[in-house]
Amino acid sequence: MIKVIIIGSGNLAQHLIVAFQNSQNEGAGIELIQVFSRKKEALTHLVDSSKITSDYNQLLEADLYIIAVSDDAIASVSAQLPFEDRLVVHTSGGVVIDVLDNKNRKGVFYPLQTFTKNKAVDFKNIPMCLETENTADFQLLEKVAKSISNSVFAIDSHQRKALHVAAVFVNNFTNHLYQIGNEICQENQIPFDILKPLILETAQKIMHLSPEKAQTGPAIRNDKKTIEAHELFLSHKNQSTIYKLLTQSIQDNGKEL
Amino acid sequence: MIKVIIIGSGNLAQHLIVAFQNSQNEGAGIELIQVFSRKKEALTHLVDSSKITSDYNQLLEADLYIIAVSDDAIASVSAQLPFEDRLVVHTSGGVVIDVLDNKNRKGVFYPLQTFTKNKAVDFKNIPMCLETENTADFQLLEKVAKSISNSVFAIDSHQRKALHVAAVFVNNFTNHLYQIGNEICQENQIPFDILKPLILETAQKIMHLSPEKAQTGPAIRNDKKTIEAHELFLSHKNQSTIYKLLTQSIQDNGKEL
Repeated sequence: MIKVIIIGSGNLAQHLIVAFQNSQNEGAGIELIQVFSRKKEALTHLVDSSKITSDYNQLLEADLYIIAVSDDAIASVSAQLPFEDRLVVHTSGGVVIDVLDNKNRKGVFYPLQTFTKNKAVDFKNIPMCLETENTADFQLLEKVAKSISNSVFAIDSHQRKALHVAAVFVNNFTNHLYQIGNEICQENQIPFDILKPLILETAQKIMHLSPEKAQTGPAIRNDKKTIEAHELFLSHKNQSTIYKLLTQSIQDNGKEL
Repeated sequence: MIKVIIIGSGNLAQHLIVAFQNSQNEGAGIELIQVFSRKKEALTHLVDSSKITSDYNQLLEADLYIIAVSDDAIASVSAQLPFEDRLVVHTSGGVVIDVLDNKNRKGVFYPLQTFTKNKAVDFKNIPMCLETENTADFQLLEKVAKSISNSVFAIDSHQRKALHVAAVFVNNFTNHLYQIGNEICQENQIPFDILKPLILETAQKIMHLSPEKAQTGPAIRNDKKTIEAHELFLSHKNQSTIYKLLTQSIQDNGKEL
Protein backbone atom coordinates (compact mmCIF):
# COMPACT_ATOMS: atom_id res chain seq x y z
CA MET A 1 0.00 0.00 0.00
CA ILE A 2 1.38 3.40 -1.03
CA LYS A 3 0.60 6.05 1.57
CA VAL A 4 -0.18 9.52 0.23
CA ILE A 5 -0.67 12.87 2.00
CA ILE A 6 -2.10 15.93 0.28
CA ILE A 7 -1.09 19.38 1.49
CA GLY A 8 -3.57 22.11 0.55
CA SER A 9 -7.31 22.73 0.56
CA GLY A 10 -7.97 24.65 -2.65
CA ASN A 11 -9.66 23.70 -5.87
CA LEU A 12 -7.03 21.24 -7.13
CA ALA A 13 -6.42 19.74 -3.66
CA GLN A 14 -10.13 18.97 -3.36
CA HIS A 15 -10.32 17.40 -6.81
CA LEU A 16 -7.25 15.26 -5.98
CA ILE A 17 -8.76 14.17 -2.67
CA VAL A 18 -11.89 12.95 -4.48
CA ALA A 19 -9.80 11.21 -7.14
CA PHE A 20 -7.70 9.35 -4.55
CA GLN A 21 -10.76 8.39 -2.53
CA ASN A 22 -12.24 6.89 -5.70
CA SER A 23 -9.04 5.01 -6.57
CA GLN A 24 -8.86 3.76 -2.96
CA ASN A 25 -12.38 2.37 -3.28
CA GLU A 26 -11.30 0.62 -6.47
CA GLY A 27 -8.47 -1.05 -4.56
CA ALA A 28 -5.65 0.50 -6.58
CA GLY A 29 -3.18 0.09 -3.72
CA ILE A 30 -3.06 3.79 -2.88
CA GLU A 31 -4.19 5.14 0.48
CA LEU A 32 -4.80 8.83 1.21
CA ILE A 33 -3.85 8.71 4.88
CA GLN A 34 -3.98 12.42 5.76
CA VAL A 35 -4.63 15.91 4.45
CA PHE A 36 -2.99 19.12 5.64
CA SER A 37 -5.08 22.30 5.67
CA ARG A 38 -4.57 25.44 7.69
CA LYS A 39 -8.37 25.69 7.86
CA LYS A 40 -9.74 22.25 8.79
CA GLU A 41 -13.33 23.26 8.01
CA ALA A 42 -12.43 23.80 4.34
CA LEU A 43 -12.24 20.02 3.89
CA THR A 44 -14.60 18.46 6.42
CA HIS A 45 -17.22 17.96 3.68
CA LEU A 46 -14.74 15.64 1.91
CA VAL A 47 -12.52 14.09 4.58
CA ASP A 48 -13.12 12.76 8.09
CA SER A 49 -11.82 15.47 10.42
CA SER A 50 -9.56 12.98 12.21
CA LYS A 51 -7.61 12.74 8.95
CA ILE A 52 -7.13 16.51 8.62
CA THR A 53 -4.26 18.31 10.34
CA SER A 54 -3.32 21.98 10.43
CA ASP A 55 -0.03 21.35 12.21
CA TYR A 56 3.07 20.41 10.24
CA ASN A 57 4.40 18.53 13.27
CA GLN A 58 1.38 16.23 13.19
CA LEU A 59 2.09 15.05 9.64
CA LEU A 60 2.27 11.25 9.45
CA GLU A 61 4.96 9.24 7.69
CA ALA A 62 3.97 8.67 4.06
CA ASP A 63 5.50 7.51 0.76
CA LEU A 64 4.42 10.65 -1.07
CA TYR A 65 3.54 14.22 -0.05
CA ILE A 66 1.62 16.15 -2.71
CA ILE A 67 1.78 19.94 -2.28
CA ALA A 68 -1.31 21.41 -3.98
CA VAL A 69 -1.06 25.09 -3.06
CA SER A 70 -0.66 28.32 -5.06
CA ASP A 71 2.60 28.67 -6.99
CA ASP A 72 3.95 31.35 -4.67
CA ALA A 73 3.48 29.21 -1.56
CA ILE A 74 5.19 26.02 -2.79
CA ALA A 75 8.72 26.96 -1.68
CA SER A 76 7.72 28.00 1.84
CA VAL A 77 5.41 25.02 2.37
CA SER A 78 8.12 22.58 1.28
CA ALA A 79 10.62 24.34 3.58
CA GLN A 80 8.33 23.99 6.59
CA LEU A 81 8.01 20.21 6.32
CA PRO A 82 9.61 18.77 9.52
CA PHE A 83 11.22 15.72 7.91
CA GLU A 84 13.92 14.78 5.40
CA ASP A 85 14.60 12.45 2.48
CA ARG A 86 10.97 11.72 1.68
CA LEU A 87 9.30 12.20 -1.72
CA VAL A 88 7.68 15.65 -1.90
CA VAL A 89 6.06 16.82 -5.14
CA HIS A 90 4.27 19.96 -6.27
CA THR A 91 1.36 20.09 -8.71
CA SER A 92 2.10 23.23 -10.69
CA GLY A 93 2.60 23.64 -14.42
CA GLY A 94 4.27 26.99 -13.99
CA VAL A 95 6.98 26.20 -11.45
CA VAL A 96 10.29 24.33 -11.86
CA ILE A 97 11.09 21.28 -9.74
CA ASP A 98 13.95 23.13 -8.00
CA VAL A 99 11.64 25.42 -6.09
CA LEU A 100 11.08 22.52 -3.67
CA ASP A 101 13.28 22.46 -0.57
CA ASN A 102 16.50 20.42 -0.86
CA LYS A 103 16.00 18.43 2.33
CA ASN A 104 13.50 16.09 0.63
CA ARG A 105 13.46 14.17 -2.69
CA LYS A 106 11.70 16.28 -5.28
CA GLY A 107 9.09 15.62 -7.89
CA VAL A 108 6.26 17.14 -9.90
CA PHE A 109 2.74 15.74 -10.24
CA TYR A 110 1.02 18.12 -12.67
CA PRO A 111 -2.49 17.39 -13.92
CA LEU A 112 -2.93 19.33 -17.18
CA GLN A 113 -6.52 20.44 -16.91
CA THR A 114 -8.64 23.42 -15.90
CA PHE A 115 -10.49 22.78 -12.64
CA THR A 116 -13.74 24.45 -11.71
CA LYS A 117 -14.98 24.50 -8.14
CA ASN A 118 -18.07 22.31 -7.67
CA LYS A 119 -17.75 20.80 -11.15
CA ALA A 120 -16.77 17.13 -11.07
CA VAL A 121 -13.94 16.08 -13.36
CA ASP A 122 -13.07 12.61 -14.55
CA PHE A 123 -9.40 12.25 -13.67
CA LYS A 124 -9.17 9.15 -15.88
CA ASN A 125 -8.81 11.41 -18.94
CA ILE A 126 -6.57 14.05 -17.42
CA PRO A 127 -2.93 13.91 -18.60
CA MET A 128 -0.66 13.59 -15.56
CA CYS A 129 2.78 15.13 -16.20
CA LEU A 130 5.41 13.61 -13.94
CA GLU A 131 8.97 14.55 -13.09
CA THR A 132 11.34 13.22 -10.42
CA GLU A 133 15.05 13.26 -9.69
CA ASN A 134 15.53 9.48 -9.77
CA THR A 135 14.02 6.38 -11.31
CA ALA A 136 12.67 4.76 -8.15
CA ASP A 137 10.73 7.90 -7.29
CA PHE A 138 9.43 8.08 -10.84
CA GLN A 139 8.13 4.53 -10.64
CA LEU A 140 6.31 5.29 -7.40
CA LEU A 141 4.86 8.53 -8.74
CA GLU A 142 3.80 6.75 -11.94
CA LYS A 143 1.97 4.09 -9.94
CA VAL A 144 0.13 6.77 -8.00
CA ALA A 145 -0.71 8.74 -11.18
CA LYS A 146 -1.96 5.61 -12.93
CA SER A 147 -4.29 4.91 -10.01
CA ILE A 148 -6.26 8.05 -10.90
CA SER A 149 -5.56 8.59 -14.63
CA ASN A 150 -5.15 6.57 -17.83
CA SER A 151 -2.93 9.25 -19.32
CA VAL A 152 0.51 9.55 -17.71
CA PHE A 153 3.56 11.30 -19.21
CA ALA A 154 7.19 11.95 -18.23
CA ILE A 155 7.59 15.70 -18.69
CA ASP A 156 10.72 17.54 -17.54
CA SER A 157 10.74 21.11 -16.20
CA HIS A 158 11.53 22.68 -19.57
CA GLN A 159 8.78 20.72 -21.32
CA ARG A 160 6.38 21.56 -18.52
CA LYS A 161 7.09 25.24 -19.05
CA ALA A 162 6.34 24.80 -22.77
CA LEU A 163 3.12 22.98 -21.91
CA HIS A 164 2.13 25.70 -19.49
CA VAL A 165 2.58 28.36 -22.17
CA ALA A 166 0.72 26.21 -24.71
CA ALA A 167 -2.09 25.76 -22.17
CA VAL A 168 -2.40 29.54 -21.87
CA PHE A 169 -2.99 29.70 -25.63
CA VAL A 170 -5.51 26.84 -25.88
CA ASN A 171 -7.31 27.57 -22.61
CA ASN A 172 -6.97 31.16 -21.30
CA PHE A 173 -6.74 32.85 -24.70
CA THR A 174 -9.36 30.61 -26.30
CA ASN A 175 -11.74 31.43 -23.48
CA HIS A 176 -11.07 35.11 -24.11
CA LEU A 177 -12.06 34.64 -27.76
CA TYR A 178 -15.31 33.05 -26.49
CA GLN A 179 -15.73 36.16 -24.37
CA ILE A 180 -15.34 38.41 -27.41
CA GLY A 181 -17.88 36.26 -29.28
CA ASN A 182 -20.21 36.73 -26.32
CA GLU A 183 -19.73 40.52 -26.38
CA ILE A 184 -20.47 40.71 -30.10
CA CYS A 185 -23.65 38.68 -29.56
CA GLN A 186 -24.81 40.84 -26.64
CA GLU A 187 -24.29 44.05 -28.57
CA ASN A 188 -26.46 42.71 -31.38
CA GLN A 189 -29.25 41.14 -29.28
CA ILE A 190 -28.24 37.60 -30.24
CA PRO A 191 -28.32 34.82 -27.62
CA PHE A 192 -24.78 33.51 -26.99
CA ASP A 193 -26.28 30.00 -26.98
CA ILE A 194 -26.35 30.19 -30.77
CA LEU A 195 -22.52 30.02 -30.84
CA LYS A 196 -22.17 27.10 -28.42
CA PRO A 197 -22.54 24.19 -30.89
CA LEU A 198 -19.87 25.83 -33.08
CA ILE A 199 -17.56 26.25 -30.09
CA LEU A 200 -17.94 22.57 -29.15
CA GLU A 201 -17.49 21.33 -32.71
CA THR A 202 -14.36 23.48 -33.15
CA ALA A 203 -12.80 21.71 -30.16
CA GLN A 204 -14.07 18.26 -31.14
CA LYS A 205 -12.86 18.63 -34.70
CA ILE A 206 -9.19 18.65 -33.70
CA MET A 207 -9.51 15.46 -31.66
CA HIS A 208 -9.05 13.63 -34.98
CA LEU A 209 -7.80 16.32 -37.37
CA SER A 210 -4.68 18.48 -36.96
CA PRO A 211 -5.44 22.17 -36.26
CA GLU A 212 -3.57 22.95 -39.47
CA LYS A 213 -5.98 20.83 -41.51
CA ALA A 214 -8.99 22.05 -39.54
CA GLN A 215 -8.32 25.72 -40.29
CA THR A 216 -11.14 27.40 -42.24
CA GLY A 217 -12.42 30.95 -42.68
CA PRO A 218 -11.66 34.16 -44.54
CA ALA A 219 -8.03 34.45 -43.34
CA ILE A 220 -6.85 31.07 -44.66
CA ARG A 221 -8.86 31.58 -47.88
CA ASN A 222 -7.34 35.07 -48.17
CA ASP A 223 -10.90 36.35 -48.72
CA LYS A 224 -10.01 40.05 -48.65
CA LYS A 225 -13.59 41.27 -49.15
CA THR A 226 -14.89 39.44 -46.09
CA ILE A 227 -11.86 40.40 -43.97
CA GLU A 228 -12.35 44.04 -44.86
CA ALA A 229 -16.07 43.89 -44.08
CA HIS A 230 -15.35 42.28 -40.70
CA GLU A 231 -12.77 44.90 -39.82
CA LEU A 232 -15.25 47.65 -40.66
CA PHE A 233 -17.91 45.92 -38.56
CA LEU A 234 -15.78 45.79 -35.40
CA SER A 235 -16.05 49.07 -33.54
CA HIS A 236 -14.09 48.09 -30.41
CA LYS A 237 -10.42 48.82 -30.86
CA ASN A 238 -9.16 45.74 -29.01
CA GLN A 239 -11.46 43.47 -31.06
CA SER A 240 -10.26 44.85 -34.37
CA THR A 241 -6.61 44.75 -33.27
CA ILE A 242 -7.00 41.07 -32.33
CA TYR A 243 -8.88 40.39 -35.58
CA LYS A 244 -6.06 41.90 -37.66
CA LEU A 245 -3.25 40.18 -35.76
CA LEU A 246 -4.80 36.69 -35.77
CA THR A 247 -5.80 37.02 -39.43
CA GLN A 248 -2.22 37.95 -40.27
CA SER A 249 -0.86 35.10 -38.14
CA ILE A 250 -3.11 32.54 -39.88
CA GLN A 251 -1.95 33.84 -43.26
CA ASP A 252 1.72 33.80 -42.23
CA ASN A 253 1.42 30.30 -40.81
CA GLY A 254 4.00 27.92 -42.12
CA LYS A 255 6.24 30.73 -43.26
CA GLU A 256 9.32 31.28 -41.15
CA LEU A 257 8.77 34.32 -38.92
CA MET B 1 -45.82 18.29 -48.47
CA ILE B 2 -43.24 21.10 -48.82
CA LYS B 3 -41.08 20.57 -51.91
CA VAL B 4 -37.44 21.56 -51.58
CA ILE B 5 -34.63 21.81 -54.16
CA ILE B 6 -30.98 22.23 -53.23
CA ILE B 7 -28.62 24.00 -55.62
CA GLY B 8 -24.96 23.12 -55.09
CA SER B 9 -22.79 20.07 -54.55
CA GLY B 10 -20.20 21.21 -52.02
CA ASN B 11 -19.65 20.39 -48.40
CA LEU B 12 -22.70 22.17 -47.00
CA ALA B 13 -24.96 21.08 -49.88
CA GLN B 14 -24.07 17.45 -49.19
CA HIS B 15 -24.69 17.78 -45.45
CA LEU B 16 -28.07 19.42 -46.17
CA ILE B 17 -29.01 16.65 -48.61
CA VAL B 18 -28.36 14.03 -45.93
CA ALA B 19 -30.28 16.05 -43.33
CA PHE B 20 -33.34 16.41 -45.59
CA GLN B 21 -33.24 12.74 -46.56
CA ASN B 22 -33.29 11.87 -42.86
CA SER B 23 -36.16 14.26 -42.09
CA GLN B 24 -38.04 12.84 -45.09
CA ASN B 25 -37.65 9.34 -43.66
CA GLU B 26 -39.03 10.62 -40.37
CA GLY B 27 -42.12 11.92 -42.20
CA ALA B 28 -41.58 15.58 -41.36
CA GLY B 29 -43.61 16.69 -44.39
CA ILE B 30 -40.60 17.91 -46.35
CA GLU B 31 -39.58 16.38 -49.66
CA LEU B 32 -36.22 16.97 -51.37
CA ILE B 33 -37.46 16.62 -54.93
CA GLN B 34 -34.31 17.59 -56.85
CA VAL B 35 -30.71 18.70 -56.59
CA PHE B 36 -28.83 20.94 -59.02
CA SER B 37 -25.16 20.27 -59.61
CA ARG B 38 -23.00 21.25 -62.56
CA LYS B 39 -21.17 17.97 -62.01
CA LYS B 40 -23.76 15.20 -61.57
CA GLU B 41 -21.16 12.68 -60.44
CA ALA B 42 -20.35 14.80 -57.37
CA LEU B 43 -23.65 13.72 -55.82
CA THR B 44 -24.50 10.30 -57.22
CA HIS B 45 -23.24 8.67 -53.98
CA LEU B 46 -26.00 10.54 -52.14
CA VAL B 47 -28.88 11.08 -54.60
CA ASP B 48 -30.49 8.98 -57.32
CA SER B 49 -29.14 10.39 -60.57
CA SER B 50 -32.68 10.91 -61.92
CA LYS B 51 -33.08 13.55 -59.20
CA ILE B 52 -29.93 15.45 -60.16
CA THR B 53 -29.92 18.07 -62.88
CA SER B 54 -27.14 20.19 -64.29
CA ASP B 55 -29.49 22.34 -66.40
CA TYR B 56 -31.27 25.32 -64.89
CA ASN B 57 -34.11 24.85 -67.41
CA GLN B 58 -34.79 21.39 -66.01
CA LEU B 59 -35.45 22.69 -62.49
CA LEU B 60 -38.82 21.51 -61.18
CA GLU B 61 -41.40 23.66 -59.45
CA ALA B 62 -40.77 23.72 -55.71
CA ASP B 63 -41.78 25.65 -52.59
CA LEU B 64 -38.19 26.41 -51.66
CA TYR B 65 -34.88 26.65 -53.52
CA ILE B 66 -31.82 26.50 -51.27
CA ILE B 67 -28.65 27.89 -52.86
CA ALA B 68 -25.67 26.25 -51.13
CA VAL B 69 -22.72 27.54 -53.17
CA SER B 70 -19.70 29.70 -52.39
CA ASP B 71 -20.42 33.30 -51.35
CA ASP B 72 -19.14 34.75 -54.60
CA ALA B 73 -21.41 32.56 -56.74
CA ILE B 74 -24.72 33.28 -54.96
CA ALA B 75 -25.65 36.37 -56.99
CA SER B 76 -25.01 34.79 -60.37
CA VAL B 77 -26.71 31.50 -59.50
CA SER B 78 -29.82 33.33 -58.29
CA ALA B 79 -29.83 35.46 -61.45
CA GLN B 80 -29.72 32.37 -63.66
CA LEU B 81 -32.85 30.78 -62.20
CA PRO B 82 -35.43 30.67 -65.04
CA PHE B 83 -38.52 31.46 -62.94
CA GLU B 84 -40.03 34.26 -60.84
CA ASP B 85 -41.77 34.91 -57.53
CA ARG B 86 -40.66 31.72 -55.85
CA LEU B 87 -38.85 31.48 -52.49
CA VAL B 88 -35.07 31.38 -53.06
CA VAL B 89 -32.70 31.39 -50.10
CA HIS B 90 -28.95 31.32 -49.65
CA THR B 91 -27.06 29.59 -46.84
CA SER B 92 -24.25 32.02 -46.14
CA GLY B 93 -23.35 33.76 -42.89
CA GLY B 94 -21.25 36.32 -44.67
CA VAL B 95 -23.63 37.61 -47.33
CA VAL B 96 -26.64 39.95 -47.02
CA ILE B 97 -30.08 38.87 -48.22
CA ASP B 98 -30.06 41.52 -50.97
CA VAL B 99 -27.41 39.74 -53.00
CA LEU B 100 -30.18 37.43 -54.22
CA ASP B 101 -31.82 38.38 -57.55
CA ASN B 102 -34.95 40.54 -57.27
CA LYS B 103 -37.11 38.37 -59.51
CA ASN B 104 -37.74 35.86 -56.72
CA ARG B 105 -38.75 36.15 -53.04
CA LYS B 106 -35.61 36.19 -50.93
CA GLY B 107 -34.53 34.46 -47.77
CA VAL B 108 -31.57 33.16 -45.82
CA PHE B 109 -31.19 29.68 -44.36
CA TYR B 110 -27.87 29.80 -42.50
CA PRO B 111 -26.71 26.84 -40.40
CA LEU B 112 -24.18 28.20 -37.91
CA GLN B 113 -21.66 25.36 -37.78
CA THR B 114 -18.34 24.29 -39.24
CA PHE B 115 -18.72 21.42 -41.69
CA THR B 116 -16.02 18.89 -42.42
CA LYS B 117 -16.15 16.71 -45.49
CA ASN B 118 -16.80 13.06 -44.63
CA LYS B 119 -17.58 13.86 -40.98
CA ALA B 120 -21.23 13.35 -40.11
CA VAL B 121 -22.96 16.15 -38.24
CA ASP B 122 -26.15 16.00 -36.23
CA PHE B 123 -28.23 18.84 -37.67
CA LYS B 124 -30.61 18.57 -34.70
CA ASN B 125 -28.19 20.66 -32.63
CA ILE B 126 -27.17 23.14 -35.31
CA PRO B 127 -28.63 26.64 -34.89
CA MET B 128 -30.52 27.57 -38.06
CA CYS B 129 -30.54 31.34 -38.64
CA LEU B 130 -33.49 32.38 -40.80
CA GLU B 131 -34.39 35.59 -42.60
CA THR B 132 -37.13 36.33 -45.13
CA GLU B 133 -38.87 39.39 -46.55
CA ASN B 134 -42.38 38.45 -45.42
CA THR B 135 -44.12 36.45 -42.71
CA ALA B 136 -45.58 33.71 -44.87
CA ASP B 137 -42.15 32.88 -46.27
CA PHE B 138 -40.71 32.92 -42.76
CA GLN B 139 -43.29 30.40 -41.59
CA LEU B 140 -42.49 28.08 -44.47
CA LEU B 141 -38.74 28.41 -43.93
CA GLU B 142 -39.20 27.84 -40.21
CA LYS B 143 -41.13 24.64 -40.88
CA VAL B 144 -38.35 23.40 -43.15
CA ALA B 145 -35.65 24.36 -40.64
CA LYS B 146 -37.48 22.67 -37.77
CA SER B 147 -37.65 19.46 -39.80
CA ILE B 148 -33.86 19.17 -39.56
CA SER B 149 -32.95 21.14 -36.41
CA ASN B 150 -34.26 21.75 -32.89
CA SER B 151 -32.60 25.14 -32.78
CA VAL B 152 -34.15 27.77 -35.06
CA PHE B 153 -33.66 31.56 -34.82
CA ALA B 154 -34.87 34.67 -36.65
CA ILE B 155 -31.65 36.53 -37.47
CA ASP B 156 -31.64 39.61 -39.73
CA SER B 157 -28.79 40.51 -42.09
CA HIS B 158 -27.08 42.83 -39.60
CA GLN B 159 -27.24 40.25 -36.82
CA ARG B 160 -26.02 37.58 -39.20
CA LYS B 161 -23.01 39.73 -40.00
CA ALA B 162 -22.33 40.07 -36.27
CA LEU B 163 -22.67 36.30 -35.85
CA HIS B 164 -20.34 35.69 -38.77
CA VAL B 165 -17.66 37.89 -37.20
CA ALA B 166 -18.23 36.26 -33.79
CA ALA B 167 -17.90 32.85 -35.45
CA VAL B 168 -14.51 33.86 -36.85
CA PHE B 169 -13.35 34.58 -33.29
CA VAL B 170 -14.70 31.41 -31.66
CA ASN B 171 -13.94 29.08 -34.57
CA ASN B 172 -11.19 30.28 -36.97
CA PHE B 173 -9.15 32.18 -34.39
CA THR B 174 -9.63 29.56 -31.68
CA ASN B 175 -8.42 26.89 -34.08
CA HIS B 176 -5.36 29.04 -34.78
CA LEU B 177 -4.62 29.12 -31.04
CA TYR B 178 -4.83 25.31 -31.08
CA GLN B 179 -2.35 25.41 -33.93
CA ILE B 180 0.07 27.54 -31.88
CA GLY B 181 -0.34 25.11 -28.97
CA ASN B 182 0.50 22.31 -31.40
CA GLU B 183 3.62 24.15 -32.61
CA ILE B 184 4.86 24.74 -29.07
CA CYS B 185 4.37 21.04 -28.31
CA GLN B 186 6.19 19.91 -31.46
CA GLU B 187 9.16 22.15 -30.76
CA ASN B 188 9.50 20.62 -27.31
CA GLN B 189 8.94 16.94 -28.21
CA ILE B 190 5.59 16.83 -26.43
CA PRO B 191 2.65 14.92 -27.97
CA PHE B 192 -0.17 17.34 -28.87
CA ASP B 193 -2.60 14.74 -27.46
CA ILE B 194 -1.65 15.94 -24.00
CA LEU B 195 -3.47 19.24 -24.65
CA LYS B 196 -6.66 17.72 -26.05
CA PRO B 197 -8.55 17.10 -22.80
CA LEU B 198 -7.84 20.71 -21.80
CA ILE B 199 -9.10 21.96 -25.17
CA LEU B 200 -12.34 19.98 -24.81
CA GLU B 201 -12.92 21.02 -21.21
CA THR B 202 -12.31 24.69 -22.10
CA ALA B 203 -15.14 24.47 -24.63
CA GLN B 204 -17.41 22.39 -22.39
CA LYS B 205 -16.91 24.71 -19.43
CA ILE B 206 -18.71 27.61 -21.08
CA MET B 207 -21.76 25.52 -21.95
CA HIS B 208 -22.91 26.29 -18.39
CA LEU B 209 -20.63 29.12 -17.25
CA SER B 210 -20.18 32.52 -18.93
CA PRO B 211 -16.75 33.01 -20.57
CA GLU B 212 -16.25 35.94 -18.21
CA LYS B 213 -16.63 33.67 -15.16
CA ALA B 214 -14.63 30.87 -16.79
CA GLN B 215 -11.57 33.05 -17.36
CA THR B 216 -8.48 31.80 -15.51
CA GLY B 217 -4.72 32.12 -15.96
CA PRO B 218 -1.86 34.55 -15.38
CA ALA B 219 -3.45 37.45 -17.30
CA ILE B 220 -6.66 37.66 -15.26
CA ARG B 221 -4.69 37.09 -12.02
CA ASN B 222 -2.24 39.79 -13.15
CA ASP B 223 0.55 37.33 -12.32
CA LYS B 224 3.39 39.45 -13.73
CA LYS B 225 6.11 36.92 -12.91
CA THR B 226 4.49 34.14 -14.95
CA ILE B 227 3.58 36.48 -17.82
CA GLU B 228 7.17 37.69 -18.02
CA ALA B 229 8.51 34.11 -17.94
CA HIS B 230 6.11 33.10 -20.74
CA GLU B 231 7.08 36.06 -22.89
CA LEU B 232 10.75 35.16 -22.45
CA PHE B 233 9.98 31.54 -23.35
CA LEU B 234 8.30 32.37 -26.66
CA SER B 235 10.93 32.74 -29.36
CA HIS B 236 8.59 33.14 -32.35
CA LYS B 237 7.70 36.75 -32.88
CA ASN B 238 4.08 36.15 -33.91
CA GLN B 239 3.51 33.93 -30.85
CA SER B 240 4.86 36.52 -28.44
CA THR B 241 2.95 39.35 -30.15
CA ILE B 242 -0.28 37.35 -29.81
CA TYR B 243 0.59 36.47 -26.20
CA LYS B 244 1.09 40.13 -25.29
CA LEU B 245 -2.03 41.38 -27.08
CA LEU B 246 -4.41 38.75 -25.68
CA THR B 247 -2.95 39.12 -22.18
CA GLN B 248 -3.54 42.88 -22.41
CA SER B 249 -7.05 42.35 -23.77
CA ILE B 250 -7.96 39.98 -20.91
CA GLN B 251 -6.66 42.52 -18.41
CA ASP B 252 -8.51 45.41 -20.07
CA ASN B 253 -11.72 43.41 -20.26
CA GLY B 254 -14.69 45.24 -18.84
CA LYS B 255 -12.92 48.57 -19.08
CA GLU B 256 -14.21 50.83 -21.85
CA LEU B 257 -11.75 50.74 -24.73
